[in-house]
Amino acid sequence: MSLRLAVAGATGIVGTIVLEQLAARQLDFSTLKLLASAKSAGKKLQFRGEELTVEPLIPEAFDGIDLVIGSTPDDVAAEFVPWAVERGAVVVDESGYHRMRDDVPLVVPEINPHAIARHRGVIASPNCSTTQLVMALKPLHDAARVKRVVVSTYQATSGAGLHAQSELFSATQAALAGESAPPQQFQHPIAFNLIPQIGSPKYEGYTSEEMKMVRETRKILEDDSIEVCPTCVRVPVANCHSESVVVETERPLSVAEAHELFGSFPGLVVVDDLPGRRYPMPLDCHGRDEVFIGRIRKDLSHPHGLAFWCVSDNLRKGAATNAVQIAELIMAGQYASCATSS
Amino acid sequence: MSLRLAVAGATGIVGTIVLEQLAARQLDFSTLKLLASAKSAGKKLQFRGEELTVEPLIPEAFDGIDLVIGSTPDDVAAEFVPWAVERGAVVVDESGYHRMRDDVPLVVPEINPHAIARHRGVIASPNCSTTQLVMALKPLHDAARVKRVVVSTYQATSGAGLHAQSELFSATQAALAGESAPPQQFQHPIAFNLIPQIGSPKYEGYTSEEMKMVRETRKILEDDSIEVCPTCVRVPVANCHSESVVVETERPLSVAEAHELFGSFPGLVVVDDLPGRRYPMPLDCHGRDEVFIGRIRKDLSHPHGLAFWCVSDNLRKGAATNAVQIAELIMAGQYASCATSS
Repeated sequence: MSLRLAVAGATGIVGTIVLEQLAARQLDFSTLKLLASAKSAGKKLQFRGEELTVEPLIPEAFDGIDLVIGSTPDDVAAEFVPWAVERGAVVVDESGYHRMRDDVPLVVPEINPHAIARHRGVIASPNCSTTQLVMALKPLHDAARVKRVVVSTYQATSGAGLHAQSELFSATQAALAGESAPPQQFQHPIAFNLIPQIGSPKYEGYTSEEMKMVRETRKILEDDSIEVCPTCVRVPVANCHSESVVVETERPLSVAEAHELFGSFPGLVVVDDLPGRRYPMPLDCHGRDEVFIGRIRKDLSHPHGLAFWCVSDNLRKGAATNAVQIAELIMAGQYASCATSS
Repeated sequence: MSLRLAVAGATGIVGTIVLEQLAARQLDFSTLKLLASAKSAGKKLQFRGEELTVEPLIPEAFDGIDLVIGSTPDDVAAEFVPWAVERGAVVVDESGYHRMRDDVPLVVPEINPHAIARHRGVIASPNCSTTQLVMALKPLHDAARVKRVVVSTYQATSGAGLHAQSELFSATQAALAGESAPPQQFQHPIAFNLIPQIGSPKYEGYTSEEMKMVRETRKILEDDSIEVCPTCVRVPVANCHSESVVVETERPLSVAEAHELFGSFPGLVVVDDLPGRRYPMPLDCHGRDEVFIGRIRKDLSHPHGLAFWCVSDNLRKGAATNAVQIAELIMAGQYASCATSS
């Protein structure tokens, strides 16, 4: 096999982890091209002991490329994805730009790998806050049908990029020194504060981030009847998103059954011992590829309800890891080869 | 009038604000006695330009006292409240120890001031996370009957006391310097982290803090049919608790009606303009006595549902302000005089 791979957005906060994952996993490719904006082009990056030069993200960069993993903002993805597809490449796109297109499968490999087969050149990876939610919902949905989800997020600054994560540290340092530090990446101070808005106003008082959780959840679980009420909040945490989730299922689930369902689902890890003070926390989940579940208990307010707490490294399973997993499936030809798609 | 007042726990994080409130408000009392543990006794505190010496919290300290505001931990309240009541004083107790007793009214003055009349020497002020929740629920309940509440909290470190708040700053400073700082007040690191446990395991996987939100809500709103599913989380914020709330009402409420109900309820302030990026945030609510509501919207997952975001200074309306308000009602003799209670 001589698959030619490119990573678009290779110097970003997620692109960096994509490269780590590609280096660590047993992926078989002959070429690896690193692409980024003109500003980052020319940078040298180490990959498996070799020095690679970052090239500019221009249409011709995709000549001869079979597969692209894209870790760019929406506006960049809007531009580069068609360049790659026109040249016959398959793109695994982590941006939000193409996710809800009918001809774009939105894939979490543990949940709907079969959807890859329907692709027309682009496969999307979900929004970070959605990925960990659907990972937790999938075993419950299969066993008892999820009807309704109320979710409140506690989202880390890394989800807004490298500069946003840096701003958490610099703004916190300034706050501790009693200095003022006007927000730059965020619209409000993030140090020792909470910002109950992620994204822009989108629908009926909900933000774009919140509506992603509604729409992407339905698309990935392939069930438009699932009702979702999300509240997305930025918290002064560097990395790893957390979610307080309350689910209503058609058939009521016991705590024991939910434990068993979560524990036997690939990619989920149950950390749940309240008397022992063990539950998932952002600092413990940093750098991990799994989604962690704890505080599993019956919803006291509804006989068919279940409540739990869910934490995941949003840069990994929420972004890089999920995209690399999709790329692995494509490269393994299990669901669709690059050749059949062009 | 020559009412003799005492503040128990006068040197604590809440006691300090009780004194500020007493100094600022037009309260009429002849004596003010400051009481605290043996460790703090002897300290000098300024009050309305006068220097007061903190006295030890012993039974005899309550001789001749009419009214006590208690801002102490539960174990201290368990001990001192009977001393005061035996000596004929009325105690406004902010601790959790006496709250659920049948003979102890649990009061939020805007909601159930009439309950004060039933007291037998002790009137309790609710848990901080409950107070702001019931403040928000009350106008909805009166207008449309609240049936179910799903609430996820984002609780500041000040709720765990002065040392816990200090630990947030010292641990964050250490984390920024790359140093390790073993947690002391908290069971886990609080810097740039989240701890999804407040209090101890209490009931069916819920913590004591969470069960306070269930039981105190019902007692204050005088309706045991209200179902509450709480998740309480400590966040790296210095002061002001925030809550993501989803409510189901018997009669569905429009966003406009909810705005109107919140906006006309005493002590509530609506800050709700998502396109203008205005909503309550902890840094903005610090030092304020009101409860702030924003992000008001229909619950996308239920036709009778309403979602909103609620922030309040947990040391003020969540503790000191509410207790002083109760004391004011008692002193005004509007609901019960000290004389009739002894």
